[in-house]
Amino acid sequence: MEFMVLALEEAELAAQRGSVPVGAVIVLDDRLLVRAGNEVIRDHDPTAHAEIVAIRRACRLLGQLMLDRCDIYVTLEPCAMCAQALSLARIRRLYFGAYDVKYGGVVHGCRVFEHAIHKPEVISGVSETQCTKILQNFFSGRR
Amino acid sequence: MEFMVLALEEAELAAQRGSVPVGAVIVLDDRLLVRAGNEVIRDHDPTAHAEIVAIRRACRLLGQLMLDRCDIYVTLEPCAMCAQALSLARIRRLYFGAYDVKYGGVVHGCRVFEHAIHKPEVISGVSETQCTKILQNFFSGRR
Repeated sequence: MEFMVLALEEAELAAQRGSVPVGAVIVLDDRLLVRAGNEVIRDHDPTAHAEIVAIRRACRLLGQLMLDRCDIYVTLEPCAMCAQALSLARIRRLYFGAYDVKYGGVVHGCRVFEHAIHKPEVISGVSETQCTKILQNFFSGRR
Repeated sequence: MEFMVLALEEAELAAQRGSVPVGAVIVLDDRLLVRAGNEVIRDHDPTAHAEIVAIRRACRLLGQLMLDRCDIYVTLEPCAMCAQALSLARIRRLYFGAYDVKYGGVVHGCRVFEHAIHKPEVISGVSETQCTKILQNFFSGRR
């Protein structure tokens, strides 16, 4: 999945900044619109997950609040904050890689879309092995 | 509740910017730290809810990711995005005013804190009448 390769590159860059390696890419009508990585550590901002950074960039670029012709590729299952943000932005389709048993809010935890007014289509486990590995490498390097 | 009065002032300013009137105030050890209002419309940013704006400002001001000595006063029940952000930021206590049957994610919808690792203490219905009225005025003026 070519867009997930770009999201993985963003995850790698996030790791180099000291943040948990998660990357996201937003695509408009199947063309790359923005790419972003987790910026929590660099920005001292607990809300700067890759998906939030990507949504903000995409909306600023398009000058609109709704991303209803856009899909997002994320290397990790979004948490409840990011899942609700994707719903608020009316993202059409969510592709994610690794599953997050602890913080995930799409197929784990509070399963935000089951209660949300706008429910993006969800395709999970995309390039799961690579997306999981980059996280494992990051956390094993910290021990 | 004096801090909710400040949050209501921020909600009023948000309405003047054309955004849904929601305001938030973050308090550190019972002293005002930051105040913020909904900036969704002004910033073309669907994530710029009052709570997210307030958390970002507070973390930037303190130069840290954790707001574990802080409480937040919000005029409306947080949605799932904001509730998870409050959990990620380790906010100690959440005071909110009006209930949000449609978008709320604390005592309605997916009830984020029931699944979250950090669960702020929640005090709901604070100055509920005024907090509800400012929303009703905004939406009735739009019909």
